[in-house]
Amino acid sequence: MGRTSDARERLLAAATGLFSERAYSSVGVAEIAARAGVQKGSFYYFFPSKEALALAVIDEHWEAQRSQWTQILDGDGTAIEHLRAIFDATSQQQVAALRGTGTVTGCLFGNLALEVSSVSAAMQERLQEIFEEQVTMISDRLRTAVAAGEVEVDDVRATAKAIVAQLEGLVLFAKLFNDPGQLDALWANSLRLMNIPEPAAG
Amino acid sequence: MGRTSDARERLLAAATGLFSERAYSSVGVAEIAARAGVQKGSFYYFFPSKEALALAVIDEHWEAQRSQWTQILDGDGTAIEHLRAIFDATSQQQVAALRGTGTVTGCLFGNLALEVSSVSAAMQERLQEIFEEQVTMISDRLRTAVAAGEVEVDDVRATAKAIVAQLEGLVLFAKLFNDPGQLDALWANSLRLMNIPEPAAG
Repeated sequence: MGRTSDARERLLAAATGLFSERAYSSVGVAEIAARAGVQKGSFYYFFPSKEALALAVIDEHWEAQRSQWTQILDGDGTAIEHLRAIFDATSQQQVAALRGTGTVTGCLFGNLALEVSSVSAAMQERLQEIFEEQVTMISDRLRTAVAAGEVEVDDVRATAKAIVAQLEGLVLFAKLFNDPGQLDALWANSLRLMNIPEPAAG
Repeated sequence: MGRTSDARERLLAAATGLFSERAYSSVGVAEIAARAGVQKGSFYYFFPSKEALALAVIDEHWEAQRSQWTQILDGDGTAIEHLRAIFDATSQQQVAALRGTGTVTGCLFGNLALEVSSVSAAMQERLQEIFEEQVTMISDRLRTAVAAGEVEVDDVRATAKAIVAQLEGLVLFAKLFNDPGQLDALWANSLRLMNIPEPAAG
Protein backbone atom coordinates (compact mmCIF):
# COMPACT_ATOMS: atom_id res chain seq x y z
CA MET A 1 0.00 0.00 0.00
CA GLY A 2 2.53 2.60 -1.09
CA ARG A 3 6.05 3.25 0.07
CA THR A 4 6.80 3.67 3.76
CA SER A 5 8.40 6.99 2.98
CA ASP A 6 4.97 8.23 1.93
CA ALA A 7 3.35 7.18 5.18
CA ARG A 8 3.47 10.60 6.85
CA GLU A 9 1.92 12.30 3.80
CA ARG A 10 -0.70 9.58 3.53
CA LEU A 11 -1.63 10.01 7.20
CA LEU A 12 -1.97 13.77 6.67
CA ALA A 13 -4.14 13.27 3.57
CA ALA A 14 -6.34 10.67 5.27
CA ALA A 15 -6.82 12.89 8.32
CA THR A 16 -7.59 15.94 6.18
CA GLY A 17 -10.31 13.96 4.43
CA LEU A 18 -11.78 12.50 7.60
CA PHE A 19 -11.72 15.80 9.55
CA SER A 20 -13.45 17.50 6.60
CA GLU A 21 -16.15 14.85 6.46
CA ARG A 22 -16.84 14.25 10.13
CA ALA A 23 -16.33 15.64 13.62
CA TYR A 24 -12.75 15.55 14.90
CA SER A 25 -13.87 13.70 18.05
CA SER A 26 -15.57 10.98 16.07
CA VAL A 27 -12.45 10.08 14.09
CA GLY A 28 -9.99 7.67 15.72
CA VAL A 29 -6.33 6.95 15.13
CA ALA A 30 -7.15 3.41 13.93
CA GLU A 31 -9.49 4.76 11.25
CA ILE A 32 -6.98 7.36 10.06
CA ALA A 33 -4.25 4.72 9.86
CA ALA A 34 -6.56 2.32 8.00
CA ARG A 35 -7.54 4.94 5.42
CA ALA A 36 -3.88 5.89 4.96
CA GLY A 37 -2.89 2.25 4.57
CA VAL A 38 -0.50 2.60 7.49
CA GLN A 39 -0.30 0.18 10.40
CA LYS A 40 -1.69 1.62 13.60
CA GLY A 41 1.59 0.97 15.39
CA SER A 42 3.43 3.02 12.77
CA PHE A 43 1.09 5.97 13.34
CA TYR A 44 2.89 6.82 16.57
CA TYR A 45 6.23 6.75 14.80
CA PHE A 46 5.08 9.82 12.87
CA PHE A 47 2.75 11.56 15.33
CA PRO A 48 2.62 11.30 19.14
CA SER A 49 -1.17 11.74 19.16
CA LYS A 50 -4.26 12.46 17.08
CA GLU A 51 -4.00 16.07 18.28
CA ALA A 52 -0.42 16.35 16.97
CA LEU A 53 -1.56 15.01 13.59
CA ALA A 54 -4.49 17.45 13.56
CA LEU A 55 -2.13 20.36 14.26
CA ALA A 56 0.03 19.23 11.34
CA VAL A 57 -3.09 18.98 9.14
CA ILE A 58 -4.10 22.52 10.13
CA ASP A 59 -0.60 23.87 9.46
CA GLU A 60 -0.33 22.13 6.09
CA HIS A 61 -3.78 23.37 5.06
CA TRP A 62 -3.03 26.95 6.11
CA GLU A 63 0.40 26.95 4.43
CA ALA A 64 -1.24 25.97 1.13
CA GLN A 65 -4.05 28.51 1.50
CA ARG A 66 -1.75 31.30 2.66
CA SER A 67 0.58 30.70 -0.23
CA GLN A 68 -2.39 30.90 -2.64
CA TRP A 69 -3.57 34.14 -1.00
CA THR A 70 -0.06 35.60 -1.01
CA GLN A 71 0.37 34.82 -4.69
CA ILE A 72 -2.90 36.62 -5.46
CA LEU A 73 -2.16 39.60 -3.17
CA ASP A 74 1.37 40.04 -4.53
CA GLY A 75 0.19 39.85 -8.15
CA ASP A 76 -0.96 42.66 -10.43
CA GLY A 77 -4.40 44.15 -9.92
CA THR A 78 -6.57 46.33 -7.73
CA ALA A 79 -7.64 45.42 -4.19
CA ILE A 80 -11.07 44.64 -5.59
CA GLU A 81 -9.59 42.23 -8.13
CA HIS A 82 -7.42 40.61 -5.46
CA LEU A 83 -10.30 40.04 -3.06
CA ARG A 84 -12.45 38.73 -5.86
CA ALA A 85 -9.72 36.24 -6.80
CA ILE A 86 -9.47 35.03 -3.18
CA PHE A 87 -13.24 34.52 -3.00
CA ASP A 88 -13.30 32.74 -6.35
CA ALA A 89 -10.60 30.38 -5.12
CA THR A 90 -12.73 29.64 -2.04
CA SER A 91 -15.83 28.91 -4.11
CA GLN A 92 -13.87 26.74 -6.50
CA GLN A 93 -12.58 24.62 -3.61
CA GLN A 94 -16.14 23.88 -2.55
CA VAL A 95 -17.21 23.10 -6.11
CA ALA A 96 -14.21 20.78 -6.47
CA ALA A 97 -15.03 19.04 -3.18
CA LEU A 98 -18.63 18.50 -4.29
CA ARG A 99 -17.44 17.09 -7.61
CA GLY A 100 -14.86 14.83 -5.99
CA THR A 101 -16.69 13.55 -2.91
CA GLY A 102 -20.35 14.42 -3.53
CA THR A 103 -20.21 16.72 -0.52
CA VAL A 104 -19.42 20.36 0.13
CA THR A 105 -16.82 19.91 2.86
CA GLY A 106 -16.84 23.53 3.99
CA CYS A 107 -13.90 25.25 5.63
CA LEU A 108 -11.63 22.92 7.58
CA PHE A 109 -10.76 25.75 9.98
CA GLY A 110 -14.40 26.73 10.52
CA ASN A 111 -15.47 23.13 11.04
CA LEU A 112 -12.75 22.57 13.63
CA ALA A 113 -13.26 25.99 15.25
CA LEU A 114 -16.82 25.14 16.22
CA GLU A 115 -15.76 21.85 17.71
CA VAL A 116 -12.34 22.03 19.29
CA SER A 117 -12.84 24.89 21.75
CA SER A 118 -13.71 22.29 24.36
CA VAL A 119 -11.39 19.59 23.05
CA SER A 120 -7.92 20.99 22.43
CA ALA A 121 -6.44 24.25 23.68
CA ALA A 122 -3.52 23.86 21.26
CA MET A 123 -5.82 23.52 18.24
CA GLN A 124 -8.01 26.37 19.45
CA GLU A 125 -4.98 28.64 19.77
CA ARG A 126 -3.64 27.67 16.34
CA LEU A 127 -7.02 28.32 14.71
CA GLN A 128 -7.24 31.71 16.45
CA GLU A 129 -3.84 32.59 14.98
CA ILE A 130 -4.91 31.53 11.49
CA PHE A 131 -8.12 33.58 11.52
CA GLU A 132 -6.17 36.58 12.86
CA GLU A 133 -3.65 36.10 10.06
CA GLN A 134 -6.42 35.92 7.44
CA VAL A 135 -7.89 39.17 8.79
CA THR A 136 -4.43 40.75 8.79
CA MET A 137 -3.75 39.76 5.18
CA ILE A 138 -7.02 41.30 4.02
CA SER A 139 -6.54 44.36 6.28
CA ASP A 140 -3.10 45.02 4.84
CA ARG A 141 -4.45 44.88 1.31
CA LEU A 142 -7.38 47.15 2.20
CA ARG A 143 -5.05 49.64 3.86
CA THR A 144 -3.00 49.96 0.65
CA ALA A 145 -6.23 50.37 -1.30
CA VAL A 146 -7.45 53.11 1.04
CA ALA A 147 -4.10 54.91 0.72
CA ALA A 148 -4.41 54.67 -3.06
CA GLY A 149 -7.92 56.14 -2.89
CA GLU A 150 -9.32 52.93 -4.35
CA VAL A 151 -11.55 52.11 -1.37
CA GLU A 152 -13.05 54.24 1.41
CA VAL A 153 -13.38 52.49 4.76
CA ASP A 154 -12.77 53.90 8.23
CA ASP A 155 -11.69 50.82 10.13
CA VAL A 156 -9.88 48.46 7.76
CA ARG A 157 -9.38 45.71 10.35
CA ALA A 158 -13.08 45.68 11.31
CA THR A 159 -13.99 45.56 7.61
CA ALA A 160 -11.55 42.73 6.94
CA LYS A 161 -12.99 40.78 9.87
CA ALA A 162 -16.54 41.37 8.62
CA ILE A 163 -15.51 39.95 5.25
CA VAL A 164 -13.92 36.84 6.78
CA ALA A 165 -17.01 36.36 9.01
CA GLN A 166 -19.27 36.71 5.96
CA LEU A 167 -17.16 34.12 4.16
CA GLU A 168 -17.39 31.66 7.09
CA GLY A 169 -21.14 32.20 7.41
CA LEU A 170 -21.76 31.53 3.72
CA VAL A 171 -19.45 28.49 3.75
CA LEU A 172 -21.59 27.19 6.63
CA PHE A 173 -24.66 27.56 4.40
CA ALA A 174 -22.81 25.92 1.48
CA LYS A 175 -22.02 22.94 3.68
CA LEU A 176 -25.47 22.70 5.30
CA PHE A 177 -27.27 22.93 1.94
CA ASN A 178 -24.54 20.97 0.14
CA ASP A 179 -24.59 23.77 -2.41
CA PRO A 180 -21.51 25.83 -3.37
CA GLY A 181 -23.93 28.31 -5.01
CA GLN A 182 -24.57 29.69 -1.51
CA LEU A 183 -21.20 31.42 -1.92
CA ASP A 184 -22.39 33.39 -4.96
CA ALA A 185 -23.52 36.21 -2.69
CA LEU A 186 -20.08 36.59 -1.13
CA TRP A 187 -18.93 39.18 -3.62
CA ALA A 188 -21.96 41.48 -3.51
CA ASN A 189 -22.04 41.26 0.30
CA SER A 190 -18.34 42.05 0.61
CA LEU A 191 -18.70 45.09 -1.63
CA ARG A 192 -21.39 46.39 0.71
CA LEU A 193 -19.18 45.72 3.73
CA MET A 194 -16.55 47.87 1.97
CA ASN A 195 -19.14 50.60 1.17
CA ILE A 196 -18.63 50.05 -2.56
CA PRO A 197 -21.68 50.49 -4.83
CA GLU A 198 -22.80 47.21 -6.39
CA PRO A 199 -21.88 47.57 -10.12
CA ALA A 200 -18.29 47.91 -9.00
CA ALA A 201 -15.18 48.85 -10.80
CA GLY A 202 -13.07 45.74 -11.28
CA MET B 1 -32.66 12.74 41.32
CA GLY B 2 -35.91 14.55 40.47
CA ARG B 3 -39.30 13.22 39.62
CA THR B 4 -39.75 10.72 36.79
CA SER B 5 -42.25 13.06 35.17
CA ASP B 6 -39.37 15.52 34.65
CA ALA B 7 -37.22 12.93 32.94
CA ARG B 8 -38.00 13.99 29.36
CA GLU B 9 -37.24 17.64 30.13
CA ARG B 10 -34.08 16.68 31.97
CA LEU B 11 -32.92 14.60 28.99
CA LEU B 12 -33.58 17.55 26.69
CA ALA B 13 -31.69 19.94 28.98
CA ALA B 14 -28.73 17.57 29.39
CA ALA B 15 -28.50 17.00 25.63
CA THR B 16 -28.74 20.73 24.90
CA GLY B 17 -25.81 21.31 27.24
CA LEU B 18 -23.70 18.48 25.89
CA PHE B 19 -24.38 19.27 22.20
CA SER B 20 -23.45 22.92 22.88
CA GLU B 21 -20.20 21.93 24.57
CA ARG B 22 -19.00 19.12 22.34
CA ALA B 23 -19.48 17.45 18.98
CA TYR B 24 -22.76 15.59 18.52
CA SER B 25 -20.89 12.42 17.50
CA SER B 26 -18.78 12.44 20.63
CA VAL B 27 -21.77 12.45 22.99
CA GLY B 28 -23.38 9.10 23.79
CA VAL B 29 -26.80 8.12 25.10
CA ALA B 30 -25.27 6.83 28.35
CA GLU B 31 -23.61 10.19 29.03
CA ILE B 32 -26.80 12.14 28.30
CA ALA B 33 -28.80 9.86 30.58
CA ALA B 34 -26.18 10.16 33.34
CA ARG B 35 -26.16 13.96 33.21
CA ALA B 36 -29.96 14.01 33.24
CA GLY B 37 -30.06 11.63 36.19
CA VAL B 38 -32.13 9.19 34.15
CA GLN B 39 -31.41 5.48 33.84
CA LYS B 40 -30.08 4.53 30.43
CA GLY B 41 -32.91 2.02 29.97
CA SER B 42 -35.47 4.78 30.55
CA PHE B 43 -33.89 6.91 27.82
CA TYR B 44 -35.49 4.75 25.16
CA TYR B 45 -38.88 5.12 26.78
CA PHE B 46 -38.73 8.81 25.86
CA PHE B 47 -36.66 8.81 22.66
CA PRO B 48 -36.08 5.98 20.17
CA SER B 49 -32.53 7.19 19.44
CA LYS B 50 -29.94 9.91 20.05
CA GLU B 51 -30.98 11.39 16.71
CA ALA B 52 -34.63 11.61 17.81
CA LEU B 53 -33.54 13.38 20.99
CA ALA B 54 -31.34 15.75 18.99
CA LEU B 55 -34.26 16.61 16.69
CA ALA B 56 -36.36 17.38 19.76
CA VAL B 57 -33.54 19.54 21.16
CA ILE B 58 -33.33 21.45 17.86
CA ASP B 59 -37.10 21.96 17.76
CA GLU B 60 -37.29 23.10 21.36
CA HIS B 61 -34.38 25.51 20.85
CA TRP B 62 -35.88 26.96 17.67
CA GLU B 63 -39.35 27.31 19.20
CA ALA B 64 -37.88 29.39 22.04
CA GLN B 65 -35.76 31.51 19.69
CA ARG B 66 -38.54 31.96 17.14
CA SER B 67 -40.95 33.04 19.85
CA GLN B 68 -38.39 35.60 21.08
CA TRP B 69 -37.87 36.89 17.52
CA THR B 70 -41.62 37.00 16.85
CA GLN B 71 -42.23 38.97 20.03
CA ILE B 72 -39.61 41.51 18.96
CA LEU B 73 -40.81 41.70 15.34
CA ASP B 74 -44.47 42.07 16.35
CA GLY B 75 -43.66 44.80 18.88
CA ASP B 76 -43.49 48.55 18.38
CA GLY B 77 -40.49 50.04 16.63
CA THR B 78 -38.72 50.48 13.32
CA ALA B 79 -37.10 47.65 11.37
CA ILE B 80 -33.74 48.95 12.54
CA GLU B 81 -34.83 48.77 16.17
CA HIS B 82 -36.24 45.29 15.68
CA LEU B 83 -33.07 43.93 14.09
CA ARG B 84 -30.97 45.58 16.76
CA ALA B 85 -33.08 43.89 19.46
CA ILE B 86 -32.65 40.48 17.80
CA PHE B 87 -28.87 40.95 17.64
CA ASP B 88 -28.72 42.16 21.23
CA ALA B 89 -30.62 39.04 22.32
CA THR B 90 -28.05 36.90 20.46
CA SER B 91 -25.11 38.66 22.11
CA GLN B 92 -26.71 38.41 25.53
CA GLN B 93 -27.12 34.64 25.12
CA GLN B 94 -23.38 34.28 24.53
CA VAL B 95 -22.55 36.55 27.46
CA ALA B 96 -24.91 34.50 29.67
CA ALA B 97 -23.34 31.24 28.49
CA LEU B 98 -19.86 32.56 29.27
CA ARG B 99 -21.00 33.67 32.72
CA GLY B 100 -22.76 30.38 33.45
CA THR B 101 -20.36 27.82 32.00
CA GLY B 102 -17.13 29.74 31.44
CA THR B 103 -17.50 29.11 27.72
CA VAL B 104 -19.09 30.86 24.78
CA THR B 105 -21.19 28.00 23.46
CA GLY B 106 -21.95 29.59 20.10
CA CYS B 107 -25.03 28.86 18.05
CA LEU B 108 -26.44 25.37 18.57
CA PHE B 109 -27.73 25.34 14.99
CA GLY B 110 -24.42 26.50 13.54
CA ASN B 111 -22.43 24.01 15.60
CA LEU B 112 -24.64 21.15 14.46
CA ALA B 113 -24.83 22.40 10.87
CA LEU B 114 -21.09 22.04 10.40
CA GLU B 115 -21.13 18.52 11.80
CA VAL B 116 -24.30 16.69 10.91
CA SER B 117 -24.27 16.97 7.12
CA SER B 118 -22.51 13.62 7.02
CA VAL B 119 -24.22 12.17 10.10
CA SER B 120 -27.98 12.68 9.91
CA ALA B 121 -30.08 13.61 6.89
CA ALA B 122 -33.05 14.34 9.18
CA MET B 123 -31.06 16.81 11.28
CA GLN B 124 -29.54 18.40 8.19
CA GLU B 125 -32.99 18.92 6.69
CA ARG B 126 -34.39 20.36 9.92
CA LEU B 127 -31.47 22.78 10.25
CA GLN B 128 -31.92 23.86 6.62
CA GLU B 129 -35.56 24.64 7.38
CA ILE B 130 -34.63 26.66 10.47
CA PHE B 131 -32.05 28.79 8.67
CA GLU B 132 -34.53 29.35 5.82
CA GLU B 133 -37.13 30.40 8.38
CA GLN B 134 -34.70 32.82 10.05
CA VAL B 135 -33.94 34.38 6.66
CA THR B 136 -37.68 34.58 5.90
CA MET B 137 -38.46 36.30 9.20
CA ILE B 138 -35.81 38.94 8.59
CA SER B 139 -36.79 39.26 4.88
CA ASP B 140 -40.42 39.87 5.79
CA ARG B 141 -39.46 42.61 8.23
CA LEU B 142 -37.10 44.21 5.69
CA ARG B 143 -39.78 44.11 3.01
CA THR B 144 -42.17 46.08 5.24
CA ALA B 145 -39.37 48.53 6.00
CA VAL B 146 -38.64 49.00 2.29
CA ALA B 147 -42.33 49.58 1.59
CA ALA B 148 -42.39 52.17 4.38
CA GLY B 149 -39.35 53.90 2.85
CA GLU B 150 -37.34 53.16 5.99
CA VAL B 151 -34.68 51.05 4.26
CA GLU B 152 -33.49 50.87 0.65
CA VAL B 153 -32.38 47.42 -0.50
CA ASP B 154 -32.94 45.76 -3.86
CA ASP B 155 -33.04 42.11 -2.90
CA VAL B 156 -34.44 41.76 0.60
CA ARG B 157 -33.96 37.99 0.78
CA ALA B 158 -30.29 38.21 -0.25
CA THR B 159 -29.78 40.97 2.33
CA ALA B 160 -31.49 38.95 5.06
CA LYS B 161 -29.32 35.95 4.22
CA ALA B 162 -26.18 38.10 4.31
CA ILE B 163 -27.17 39.29 7.79
CA VAL B 164 -27.76 35.75 9.08
CA ALA B 165 -24.44 34.63 7.53
CA GLN B 166 -22.67 37.57 9.19
CA LEU B 167 -24.25 36.59 12.50
CA GLU B 168 -23.11 32.95 12.15
CA GLY B 169 -19.60 34.01 11.14
CA LEU B 170 -19.23 36.32 14.14
CA VAL B 171 -20.69 33.71 16.50
CA LEU B 172 -18.01 31.35 15.18
CA PHE B 173 -15.37 33.93 16.16
CA ALA B 174 -17.05 34.45 19.55
CA LYS B 175 -16.85 30.71 20.19
CA LEU B 176 -13.30 30.27 18.87
CA PHE B 177 -11.97 33.24 20.87
CA ASN B 178 -14.30 32.52 23.80
CA ASP B 179 -15.23 36.20 23.61
CA PRO B 180 -18.80 37.48 23.15
CA GLY B 181 -17.26 40.88 22.30
CA GLN B 182 -16.61 39.49 18.82
CA LEU B 183 -20.32 40.09 18.23
CA ASP B 184 -19.99 43.84 18.86
CA ALA B 185 -19.36 44.40 15.14
CA LEU B 186 -22.61 42.70 14.14
CA TRP B 187 -24.62 45.87 14.19
CA ALA B 188 -22.26 48.07 12.17
CA ASN B 189 -21.73 45.26 9.64
CA SER B 190 -25.45 44.65 9.25
CA LEU B 191 -26.10 48.34 8.65
CA ARG B 192 -23.58 48.22 5.81
CA LEU B 193 -25.23 45.11 4.40
CA MET B 194 -28.48 47.12 4.38
CA ASN B 195 -26.77 50.13 2.74
CA ILE B 196 -27.50 52.26 5.80
CA PRO B 197 -24.89 54.91 6.73
CA GLU B 198 -23.12 54.13 10.03
CA PRO B 199 -24.46 56.78 12.47
CA ALA B 200 -27.87 55.25 11.93
CA ALA B 201 -31.28 56.32 12.98
CA GLY B 202 -32.43 54.03 15.76
